[in-house]
Amino acid sequence: MQLTYTIGDYLLDRLSALGIDHLFGVPGDYNLQFLDHVIAHDSVCWVGCANELNAAYAADGYARIQGAGALLTTYGVGELSAINGTAGSFAEYVPVLHIVGAPRTSSQQRGELLHHTLGDGNFSHFYEMSRPVSCAQAQLTVDNACREIDRVLQEMIAQRRPAYLMLPADVASAPTSPPGCPLTIASSTVDDNQLAEFKEQARRLLSNNRRVVLLADFLAQRFGLQQQLQQWVDSQPLPHATMLMGKGLFNEQHPAFIGTYSGVASDKQTREIVESAETLICVGTRFTDTLTVGFTHQINVEKTIDLQPFAARIGHRWFSGLPMHQALLALIEVTASLSSQWIVPHYSSRPIAKEKQGDLTQKNFWSTIQEQLQPGDIVLADQGTSAFGVGALKLPRDVTLIVQPLWGSIGFTLPAAFGAQTAAPDRRVVLIIGDGAAQLTIQEIGSMMRDDQRLVILLLNNEGYTVERAIHGPEERYNDISLWNWTQLPQALNLDSQAQCWRVTQAVQLKEALTHSERRDRLTLVEVMLPRMDIPDFLRVLTQSIEARNQTA
Amino acid sequence: MQLTYTIGDYLLDRLSALGIDHLFGVPGDYNLQFLDHVIAHDSVCWVGCANELNAAYAADGYARIQGAGALLTTYGVGELSAINGTAGSFAEYVPVLHIVGAPRTSSQQRGELLHHTLGDGNFSHFYEMSRPVSCAQAQLTVDNACREIDRVLQEMIAQRRPAYLMLPADVASAPTSPPGCPLTIASSTVDDNQLAEFKEQARRLLSNNRRVVLLADFLAQRFGLQQQLQQWVDSQPLPHATMLMGKGLFNEQHPAFIGTYSGVASDKQTREIVESAETLICVGTRFTDTLTVGFTHQINVEKTIDLQPFAARIGHRWFSGLPMHQALLALIEVTASLSSQWIVPHYSSRPIAKEKQGDLTQKNFWSTIQEQLQPGDIVLADQGTSAFGVGALKLPRDVTLIVQPLWGSIGFTLPAAFGAQTAAPDRRVVLIIGDGAAQLTIQEIGSMMRDDQRLVILLLNNEGYTVERAIHGPEERYNDISLWNWTQLPQALNLDSQAQCWRVTQAVQLKEALTHSERRDRLTLVEVMLPRMDIPDFLRVLTQSIEARNQTA
Repeated sequence: MQLTYTIGDYLLDRLSALGIDHLFGVPGDYNLQFLDHVIAHDSVCWVGCANELNAAYAADGYARIQGAGALLTTYGVGELSAINGTAGSFAEYVPVLHIVGAPRTSSQQRGELLHHTLGDGNFSHFYEMSRPVSCAQAQLTVDNACREIDRVLQEMIAQRRPAYLMLPADVASAPTSPPGCPLTIASSTVDDNQLAEFKEQARRLLSNNRRVVLLADFLAQRFGLQQQLQQWVDSQPLPHATMLMGKGLFNEQHPAFIGTYSGVASDKQTREIVESAETLICVGTRFTDTLTVGFTHQINVEKTIDLQPFAARIGHRWFSGLPMHQALLALIEVTASLSSQWIVPHYSSRPIAKEKQGDLTQKNFWSTIQEQLQPGDIVLADQGTSAFGVGALKLPRDVTLIVQPLWGSIGFTLPAAFGAQTAAPDRRVVLIIGDGAAQLTIQEIGSMMRDDQRLVILLLNNEGYTVERAIHGPEERYNDISLWNWTQLPQALNLDSQAQCWRVTQAVQLKEALTHSERRDRLTLVEVMLPRMDIPDFLRVLTQSIEARNQTA
Repeated sequence: MQLTYTIGDYLLDRLSALGIDHLFGVPGDYNLQFLDHVIAHDSVCWVGCANELNAAYAADGYARIQGAGALLTTYGVGELSAINGTAGSFAEYVPVLHIVGAPRTSSQQRGELLHHTLGDGNFSHFYEMSRPVSCAQAQLTVDNACREIDRVLQEMIAQRRPAYLMLPADVASAPTSPPGCPLTIASSTVDDNQLAEFKEQARRLLSNNRRVVLLADFLAQRFGLQQQLQQWVDSQPLPHATMLMGKGLFNEQHPAFIGTYSGVASDKQTREIVESAETLICVGTRFTDTLTVGFTHQINVEKTIDLQPFAARIGHRWFSGLPMHQALLALIEVTASLSSQWIVPHYSSRPIAKEKQGDLTQKNFWSTIQEQLQPGDIVLADQGTSAFGVGALKLPRDVTLIVQPLWGSIGFTLPAAFGAQTAAPDRRVVLIIGDGAAQLTIQEIGSMMRDDQRLVILLLNNEGYTVERAIHGPEERYNDISLWNWTQLPQALNLDSQAQCWRVTQAVQLKEALTHSERRDRLTLVEVMLPRMDIPDFLRVLTQSIEARNQTA
């Protein structure tokens, strides 16, 4: 079918140029015309999901691997179902474009009583609701569409946050011309005076200190500084750590890598080195409750150089015109002549427990995982016991870790794993998720199998919301869940089921299942039987802190 | 465990007094303390769901049976996951209280970087996002809680729409006293002059007319007029119809019941009688696109008396101080002396096709359903082929039909069926849903089975989004879905599976399965194999209209 070049095509060409080659979503009667153009597009592929929240999670997982992602839903019912996923992308700085197929412009102007509306003739409600969770929004018209698409995408990429486009059916199919020039993403302007002063102050602070430590986290990764940071620590003797949210940023096999910092829940050495630094250089960190087990981090503002996306701070002084990238370049330059005098403290990584035999427990589960992870794996660990268990691992080279500790929406990682595998079909994706969490988003196993994806899903069966039990009400009925036959699910969710399913109670069985899965000849689901109240150490400290904070002012 | 009487208990006592004896939701770390009080409460039961959107749908289904419902989620992630469900309740006038467990007041005041927030220290974002989809909202504090709980519940009941309470953990557990007096729901004040004038004008209009027809719809049911309307048509010779959204409002076996009005898609006689009425009395109707197959209704404003929840209209004149209930009483009084001269036109209900043999098609599927429905059943039909097919049935007495044609969120009815069965454990619940729709919310089958519910689920397998195919792109890949093994699902979703599963291709098999299900000894899932492009007549007219409207201004 030869189709006229439309505004829909313009949008798709812009997405493709940004490296977004997959569009996740659910069809609906206000987006079908646009979908014709998606299907016909040379490089953007349609990836149908079982529901809209799952599609939003999948687009987020895709964007965390690919740099950016996109999501298509229908008006009202579809977009609101997805909005929690978009909010997570917003909180955690993941650029995902949410395209909403909307009723025709003329129907909106007439205020018609259409389905998927609140029945009041007002078509701006959901656009308004999208504002707090997106960095740019537009209601497209035939006249403004190309200009507004460009503006919204530019903001999305510059801010690394979701954006929202309301695309009426008639606008999507209106004819237009292809983009005349590439989309330029303006880098933030640098204030030269600020930069000079920043350098000067940094030099003054650093020149007297020998114990300098680098703590980098998720925003460094989101704003594309991973390679530069790794080169820095490769070329200068700089002890460096991440927090859980940015874990995987550094090569954890590096001799100067000193672990994952998380306040009092850190490994003792990690904590000591970070907290006793004479200067602590923070790049892209945010000290949230879960990352610091209830704000137990001891970080002295006066000793800190803090690089944030669009500003930097030395001690109490903010440099507001200074983007993270420029500030980092400046620091690398300043430290080149100073770093020879730095001390790299002794650090020997916390030995992972050796118990790999016997009934499965959190301890020997994680030591088995430690042993089985491969360089290049993508690991997703759901909020709950999974994410906090993964924090204690020493990752092999080039492992990408996807966790969501700020937004913390349980069930997120299952569709996110589908999205991540879509972005990187050649990498092994290992998903670690609890039974309580997996119930929220289970449908997407059907999509994985439809697309012949061969992930490894480790389904931790501890009979309910163990993380909530640890916080409050260990024996309460509200922390129980409906018990499922997990190993039967993959074949129920796909007619041509090719899954390999295991139910393991012993560490040796887990190891065998994981070894077997390396062949990647089919999707593997391993139901891992764990004691109901057994939790990783990190989580024990954290949940006690959360409960204490819920109980007292 | 003996617990102090708290604000949480106060809220629960108020719910219980409103007949809300079940609280649907998902636990989260900001609502666990409140949950202790839910579990301990004498009459309110906790009903855990697999995810928050499903919980919102379940609470909506419960409220449609029980009169009102309630939903508990956690802050941010939980409430936003549920918000599409709440929006549906808002659009369709279903009173559901959404209680959101939130971080402690002091943490909010300090603007802490907590999980489940956007990381900006602002705790009002989601409260603001709830505004367009709830009729009353409150951020509870220790000082305002009891007063605000009362205000919000009063609004919710008076307006029959959802309401929103943000309940910080410390507020939930703060001590208070039980309610001193029952919650009074102020009925809207009646303007006596308006009422007198309304009566006078109605009398003038009606006294000259002999062909008077009553068209009542969903708002009449929502505002509690079902019994009064039935008594009216039982005592006066008044031909009466509903639209799809309010179907089930009348006893459809009544000789003066003239069917379901839906513009050009109506039965020919129904349409003729409604549209040729000299006076058409509309009670609680809204002429939305799906109910009128694209606004094809021919209703002359000048010949209409229109009763809306808080105002009434005769011809072009609005009476704004006149609630529906009072206006109806006035009309009944006025017509008592006039109705003897009314003409009841001949109406013989459209014969349902007799084909009950052979391969299943839409035709013999619906004729088999028609035959098998029992008085007192609760029938849920999902938006799509199901809801539009059910429109043509003649319901047995006391059947309650749940459809969602205005909001039209596919997948809604599956959790709503769980909620409806929770409200009415002794009634048979029959759920009719397509495969595309069921994939969105499938988890709740696990909850049904956990609670030993014995619904009949008719899963119409037509390999994808048939309703979307009918609108646009019949052969396009985006209308395909991942194909599932439906009959294996119930046992996969529950460890102690007691479901009875059938896969039927012949009308006689369907009949056998349905007959068997009458025993109600276990949950029944019938996978009904239907031709991919076969759709009910109503839907054929509607989808052509929708596509035409999407294509042209």
